[in-house]
Amino acid sequence: MKLLDYNGWENMESMFRRNLFNSLSGFKSLALIGTKSAGGITNLAPFSQIIHIGANPPFTGILFRPHTVQRDTLENILDTKYFTINHVHVDILLQAHHTAARWESSEFEGVGLEEEYLDNFQSPFVKSSKIKWACEFVERQDIKVNGTILIIGAIKQIYVPEAYVAKDGFIDLQSAGSLTSNGLDAYYKTDLVDRLSYPKPDTLPHSI
Amino acid sequence: MKLLDYNGWENMESMFRRNLFNSLSGFKSLALIGTKSAGGITNLAPFSQIIHIGANPPFTGILFRPHTVQRDTLENILDTKYFTINHVHVDILLQAHHTAARWESSEFEGVGLEEEYLDNFQSPFVKSSKIKWACEFVERQDIKVNGTILIIGAIKQIYVPEAYVAKDGFIDLQSAGSLTSNGLDAYYKTDLVDRLSYPKPDTLPHSI
Repeated sequence: MKLLDYNGWENMESMFRRNLFNSLSGFKSLALIGTKSAGGITNLAPFSQIIHIGANPPFTGILFRPHTVQRDTLENILDTKYFTINHVHVDILLQAHHTAARWESSEFEGVGLEEEYLDNFQSPFVKSSKIKWACEFVERQDIKVNGTILIIGAIKQIYVPEAYVAKDGFIDLQSAGSLTSNGLDAYYKTDLVDRLSYPKPDTLPHSI
Repeated sequence: MKLLDYNGWENMESMFRRNLFNSLSGFKSLALIGTKSAGGITNLAPFSQIIHIGANPPFTGILFRPHTVQRDTLENILDTKYFTINHVHVDILLQAHHTAARWESSEFEGVGLEEEYLDNFQSPFVKSSKIKWACEFVERQDIKVNGTILIIGAIKQIYVPEAYVAKDGFIDLQSAGSLTSNGLDAYYKTDLVDRLSYPKPDTLPHSI
């Protein structure tokens, strides 16, 4: 079925269009970003576009919607330089989603998630999150076509229970219960199909 | 468990580090990008960082590793401006993974996926893919810290079977069989936990 022709997006109902294009691009990560304002107020917000930028040295990217309304997470990162990223598992899903509401005070308090401070890092982690890491702001890219902002952080510390880390470094996110997301409001568990061998032209990929 | 301390990445074995940081950032999308070279040779390659850039107008981003070795997909997009994005379901997973090998000729031929041309768009789609769309290059952002490249395309046409599109525009990727990926080689089906209501401070999120 051809759903959209050239420029057909202009005639779509706005919520339909938002849901359609947000879900079209595929499954996404799901994590809570923890920051502290220059004035010391903690903030927690859900993000689905957590991007792997590099491993050597390690960098994480986060995509932000255009900065046309108040965006506490973005402002806190630009003001203080530091943030944490915390995976979401099913037991904290409702609270994680709820952090996106317009809270007057800290989202930690609002939704009932406990702050945690690790190894003198200044931004709050989510205590009940199982996989989490700390970043320091290093770069901002403003996307010209619509003002979307890509923030890149250098990874400073990571915390992963040993049981989930394979000998080759792969983290078994499914066993850790990390969720994947799609669109604006859909959340999923995962079911491993396979890990496949390094691709070579002369042999079919096989399970590793 | 604290897995990494400040600058600890420098002492990691290189493959361990690559797997670790590729999996850390969370679940990703999975799609095949179809292009044609200026000389008319078709190309197909798997990508996991398909990014939602905007809905109005609709844009898709793709993250590329630094352009230090031959990257046919990137070169074809920069040369010809056009590309297709095709979701991967379990029946074409082996072929999709196999397109990442170093093929001498077209990956379509190498792995046995059929090309499809729709509505006069010049780049090849994957015939057996169920959810696919066509993009025209509009912007390139080079990330300073490590040379990673973000390519942004304007969405020109999309093809989604009607059965997977909800009344509110949400695409049911799980029913379509679209996979999610993690790290360099792990592929997963999904299991919907919930779609949750628009978050407000005074009420707990509920199923929609």
